[in-house]
Amino acid sequence: MREITLVGIGCGNPDHMTLQGIAALQGADLILLPEKPEKPQLAQVREQILARHLGAQRPRIASFAMPRRERGGDYLDAVDDWHRRIARAWTEAMAAFPDCRHVALLVWGDPALYDSTIRIARRLDPEMALRVVPGVSAVSVLAAAHGIPLNHVSSPVAIMPARQLTARGWPEGFESVVVMLDDGHALEGCKVSAHIFWGAYLGMPQEMLVHGPLAKRRGEILALRKELRARHGWIMDIYLLTTRTP
Amino acid sequence: MREITLVGIGCGNPDHMTLQGIAALQGADLILLPEKPEKPQLAQVREQILARHLGAQRPRIASFAMPRRERGGDYLDAVDDWHRRIARAWTEAMAAFPDCRHVALLVWGDPALYDSTIRIARRLDPEMALRVVPGVSAVSVLAAAHGIPLNHVSSPVAIMPARQLTARGWPEGFESVVVMLDDGHALEGCKVSAHIFWGAYLGMPQEMLVHGPLAKRRGEILALRKELRARHGWIMDIYLLTTRTP
Repeated sequence: MREITLVGIGCGNPDHMTLQGIAALQGADLILLPEKPEKPQLAQVREQILARHLGAQRPRIASFAMPRRERGGDYLDAVDDWHRRIARAWTEAMAAFPDCRHVALLVWGDPALYDSTIRIARRLDPEMALRVVPGVSAVSVLAAAHGIPLNHVSSPVAIMPARQLTARGWPEGFESVVVMLDDGHALEGCKVSAHIFWGAYLGMPQEMLVHGPLAKRRGEILALRKELRARHGWIMDIYLLTTRTP
Repeated sequence: MREITLVGIGCGNPDHMTLQGIAALQGADLILLPEKPEKPQLAQVREQILARHLGAQRPRIASFAMPRRERGGDYLDAVDDWHRRIARAWTEAMAAFPDCRHVALLVWGDPALYDSTIRIARRLDPEMALRVVPGVSAVSVLAAAHGIPLNHVSSPVAIMPARQLTARGWPEGFESVVVMLDDGHALEGCKVSAHIFWGAYLGMPQEMLVHGPLAKRRGEILALRKELRARHGWIMDIYLLTTRTP
């Protein structure tokens, strides 16, 4: 039977690769690679990692067209359907390589945090073994770039998708909230008195950081997001909000 | 002026080192190393990392006796005093090497998450430059070892020290809570209906994992903690509680 290894590759900088991740890629005989034409720079980072660590003994590559999530309708239903279609795309891509036993998949950041690769892998043939190699998450890269801890002493941290911050507001009893997957709406609507540490394209040459009181920086960040997305064709950003003055 | 680089080294397994972390160690001319006689295995992991990546061009080593936090009294005051004494120990250790400009410090897990190294570094001479290299956190290693995502789709995750879980109870609106720094009391007192994913000595040869319904596994984990601590002389563990059936 096959084994699939999900390898956390860190966030933007190919030097975020761990030795464990490199060994997992080198031990694979097939690499599953998504085609995401809208984010060519992410494909470049993956390509750099493969070129640097695999060299001549390069395994086979199974590319698959990354399905897109349906917009509108119930969000959870749309995600479920999307994951089902991704799992099918993997299965079809792997079927062309029946002799390959060790399949690896490169996962942005850390596979456990706001990435559904583990969930999708669980939809495959249950006899297929699953191994996860942890990676440096975007959350850690954000904090490192700003040179700050995520948490205050003896205080909890929440990590949440933007739609949850918008729907439910600031979580009671928290001083530190990391927001992921925001298209700008959560930032625009968040009226809490906080300090923001924002980062876009973390780990990449065009990395951009802004921090300061949210009320002062909100407009600047929203304008910058718009401008950067137009310039590069895509954007990935993340931020920490903290209600305690740093 | 000096520059100090805090290098996240991952959690237990020397192969959690990133290429960026290795380069940071290789670029240092002085490495600040704590002496923690109660956890010799942690010192061994650090030693393995240095021996493997630094070889002959090894930088100087400045050891310092790790101060201990005062028990009893106000917790935050005790932490503040502890950090002050650690910063002083660093300063004294570095003073013996006036010609070394690039100082590196190996930080367990990721420097931003429930580790105070960044906070302590901020107490040093403010003209000293600070650089943080993100690492693989114990949180990521726990999830990878169990092969699970930390979050449910569109749902937040809380990461909290055990004393906060005990003092404030389960955070409202959360389905996933990662608990750190528990001496067993928080686990014993947590009466929420949840599934637990527990791990000790993550990344190390004696790694131990337990998962299942909290009510069923609590006693087993508490007994195991006690036994393992007696056997190895120390323990580090972490767990995820989730109120949604996996």
